[in-house]
Amino acid sequence: MSRSPGRKQENHKISRELFVLTYGALVAQLCKDYEKDEDVNTCLDTMGYSIGVRLIDDFLARSAVKKCRSYSETAGMIAQVAFKMYLGITPTVSCRSAAGNEFSLILDKNPLVDFVEELPAERASLCYCNLLCGVIRGALEMVHLAAEVTFLQDRLKGDAVTEIGITFLRKPEDRKHKRN
Amino acid sequence: MSRSPGRKQENHKISRELFVLTYGALVAQLCKDYEKDEDVNTCLDTMGYSIGVRLIDDFLARSAVKKCRSYSETAGMIAQVAFKMYLGITPTVSCRSAAGNEFSLILDKNPLVDFVEELPAERASLCYCNLLCGVIRGALEMVHLAAEVTFLQDRLKGDAVTEIGITFLRKPEDRKHKRN
Repeated sequence: MSRSPGRKQENHKISRELFVLTYGALVAQLCKDYEKDEDVNTCLDTMGYSIGVRLIDDFLARSAVKKCRSYSETAGMIAQVAFKMYLGITPTVSCRSAAGNEFSLILDKNPLVDFVEELPAERASLCYCNLLCGVIRGALEMVHLAAEVTFLQDRLKGDAVTEIGITFLRKPEDRKHKRN
Repeated sequence: MSRSPGRKQENHKISRELFVLTYGALVAQLCKDYEKDEDVNTCLDTMGYSIGVRLIDDFLARSAVKKCRSYSETAGMIAQVAFKMYLGITPTVSCRSAAGNEFSLILDKNPLVDFVEELPAERASLCYCNLLCGVIRGALEMVHLAAEVTFLQDRLKGDAVTEIGITFLRKPEDRKHKRN
């Protein structure tokens, strides 16, 4: 019987394939439930938000990361710690605005679509992975960071990469002021 | 920035919490869609079946297990390799019939219900984790093993343990005969 080494330390670690297929079942169900892609997208985002609100405690406890001091550091933490922890990938982060509050997470590989060949023609506006945007938005809100999170590019729609845009809605100065 | 050791070898390993919460969103959606618990249970089982049919290839490739020679060995493989790989737990296996074709997987801990406090009173017949039964059934069918898979006990319903029953539907002799 084959067992992976170091299994005792990995009680919370799982292979992601069951998750990816279960996510596919969820999207398929929503596509049955809602005729319009926009409604499916909204529903995925709302579900993700509720998940993010609950997941943040697990993330903070398990990652033991320190408080971020800038939006840039927060974006890096999402990409390098959170994505690694929950999806097993590390997106590249880039800043998209001079104001320093808009960031892109570039996913070279998106495991959530591992079993998806392409979107059906009648579902061309579907943001298949929109749950992720909601999760990020919900988790950020729980650490008092309001943000807009949307897909800017999606390989499933023929784009060269998959890109998630995060726009922090308050300036760092506002945050400092509020916290003090 | 905190990083787990040995991360390079763990590209497919993820923390299970996002999966568990996403599964919860799926069950909640089905409860919105279907009034009767039985319909939700059937839907979860059917979804699970489709997942199992696809997951088996991943399982065989990733686990590199050898062909099982008995139902007992198969049940042990499901508990000790598959559950460990996809849910991070190892149920206890027991044989429930003299004929050697009925097995129980006893789950002391069920991560899929980590975020569930209890079933609502109006959902008393819900088999919350019924997807798992479908997954096992679908995966077994792809290796030519017909089986009935159902929850026999469920902590969410007040039982002392969570118990999944697997009944292999053909005798080992029939299988040998068919394969030869």
